[in-house]
Amino acid sequence: MGGDHGPSVVVGGVRDYIRIHGGDGVRFILHGDETAIAAEMARCKLTADTCEIRHTDKVVAMDEKPAQAMRRGKGSSLWNAIEAVKTGEAGAVVSAGNTGALMAIAKLILRMSAPGLERPAIVASWPTLKGVTAVLDVGANIESDAEQLIEFAIMGEAFHAAVHGGQNGSGRPSIGILNVGSEDVKGHEEVREAHQILKNNALDLNYHGFVEGDDIAKGTVDVVVTDGFTGNIALKTAEGTARFISTLLKEALTANLQSKLGAVIAMPALKAMSRKIDPSAINGGPLLGLNGIVVKSHGGATAKGFGNAIRIGVDLARSDYMAKVGANLGRLGDVMHAAPAAQTANPDQVSGETLQ
Amino acid sequence: MGGDHGPSVVVGGVRDYIRIHGGDGVRFILHGDETAIAAEMARCKLTADTCEIRHTDKVVAMDEKPAQAMRRGKGSSLWNAIEAVKTGEAGAVVSAGNTGALMAIAKLILRMSAPGLERPAIVASWPTLKGVTAVLDVGANIESDAEQLIEFAIMGEAFHAAVHGGQNGSGRPSIGILNVGSEDVKGHEEVREAHQILKNNALDLNYHGFVEGDDIAKGTVDVVVTDGFTGNIALKTAEGTARFISTLLKEALTANLQSKLGAVIAMPALKAMSRKIDPSAINGGPLLGLNGIVVKSHGGATAKGFGNAIRIGVDLARSDYMAKVGANLGRLGDVMHAAPAAQTANPDQVSGETLQ
Repeated sequence: MGGDHGPSVVVGGVRDYIRIHGGDGVRFILHGDETAIAAEMARCKLTADTCEIRHTDKVVAMDEKPAQAMRRGKGSSLWNAIEAVKTGEAGAVVSAGNTGALMAIAKLILRMSAPGLERPAIVASWPTLKGVTAVLDVGANIESDAEQLIEFAIMGEAFHAAVHGGQNGSGRPSIGILNVGSEDVKGHEEVREAHQILKNNALDLNYHGFVEGDDIAKGTVDVVVTDGFTGNIALKTAEGTARFISTLLKEALTANLQSKLGAVIAMPALKAMSRKIDPSAINGGPLLGLNGIVVKSHGGATAKGFGNAIRIGVDLARSDYMAKVGANLGRLGDVMHAAPAAQTANPDQVSGETLQ
Repeated sequence: MGGDHGPSVVVGGVRDYIRIHGGDGVRFILHGDETAIAAEMARCKLTADTCEIRHTDKVVAMDEKPAQAMRRGKGSSLWNAIEAVKTGEAGAVVSAGNTGALMAIAKLILRMSAPGLERPAIVASWPTLKGVTAVLDVGANIESDAEQLIEFAIMGEAFHAAVHGGQNGSGRPSIGILNVGSEDVKGHEEVREAHQILKNNALDLNYHGFVEGDDIAKGTVDVVVTDGFTGNIALKTAEGTARFISTLLKEALTANLQSKLGAVIAMPALKAMSRKIDPSAINGGPLLGLNGIVVKSHGGATAKGFGNAIRIGVDLARSDYMAKVGANLGRLGDVMHAAPAAQTANPDQVSGETLQ
């Protein structure tokens, strides 16, 4: 029932998913208003073979505060969909609804599996020159200590392997921590400590080292780890930059008759280019760190975009994601417990940072 | 002597500055190797009327560590150029040299004027849909408390007024603090505290409120304030995104004969567009918070770019920048001293951030 367009996009997304991946045996439980959903199913020619409706009148509004949604949300479509993951009836939940409410209710029902995290981490799938890089957290973990950053690395790695196949399909994604330089001494204490632990290599991870902001779009690594504050700002800054350039480009290509003619002739190539950065091809940000698979679709996503969010949920649910993350979180617990003090990086700074 | 190209770009930049702003009475002192500089002056047809050479054999290498440069740099071209600002002989210093060494030696010789800052802040002039936005710190103040963030606001405002004239030339630049949302409760304690103090309006500033990453390129405000870690990552992420899109665009426009033809026809408009985001038109990042004007040119800048960095130094030196910053830093001292506890924002969080 959620998102800017409600059941039309959700049911349309199911149709798109089945059209592309038809016959892969996925079945859908659609939570919400039976009449509205049945009408959309008829429009999309979907039958009870693949889609089962679970009626409820109750919905969480898009502008409802998370605390309110937690108190009043029981029995809503959002709540029931998450509950179905908890009971094992569903392998994953996909929602275009209220992000804060989804995070709050998912945490309440499923509980966190990552011991260092207070809140689920949100992953952005970022188009790059080499494919797709997973960047996390772009969500609500505003201040992240070393342990949290490493948990992001563990979950981001398993996510990339399950959904994007690692660089060149190697299944062995590389990981970088976002920083202001590549030397060991750069950045604040949290990133330096996480860097040292990952370098010591007690976890089953392919750690590359520090990366900088421009490494994201280069595709230097498959997984970029950062706190939710920096990650959110990096993501929105990139979106703003892309929109800025595309505005300038449109202005240039419609500036006069000559440029309009050139644009018409080059249009097939320009369209092929914009497909490479089509938001619906990367829609679907999983909430990681929960005991269950939860995928958030953009509220304004199209049916095609929602179909992609479904694919991410299916890929995660059918992979060894949960087991792999569980094993590495166990190793991390040993590392953090064994010698917390020894792991702390040398606090000496050089270059710009040290000068007194 | 600094930068990737040494005196050719520096002296070429002086020639470009004089060509564009000729007759505005600026005189130049060129510090470094007399023979090399004289040869470049001859090439650029510059005479002793406008350019005086101060010979020194000693240079700070581009890869020298700041601490080393501070110990061994006395008498180098970098050192002498900054010393000339200290003695009042020069109104500003412009360098394409080693950034860390420039910051360290400038701090040593000129001392900080902003009491909360440990290091000078670096400003990026960011092209936007409305003009140019100043973003700071994009440099070395990795962790910034509320007082530092407000000092960035004070200095960024005076910089934008002096160099870019405020929005629509109003001379009254608007200021935003970079955050993950616009509500008072968003973000970490440092940004919330700075936000409250700026909202209380005890300073002579035009404060807009929180802005998000995509507001930078929109030009929502004239000055975007952030810590050096987030600012550096936002800047490099934007550069990476711009390079990514421009690579895709070039690939699209050379993909086949038809798209090449379209590109040739649209080329004048595309060239006009790329002039709008020409790095040399915005080259020159002042180091703010010192008792003197210091401008850093990109090491790889062209002569045209270096000329723009000179313009920024001249605009700052001829404006009321230092007096205005001094007055507002005085007011800030009173505010911080008066009621530090009362300024602290409400620590309650809502939405994604609060969920336990």
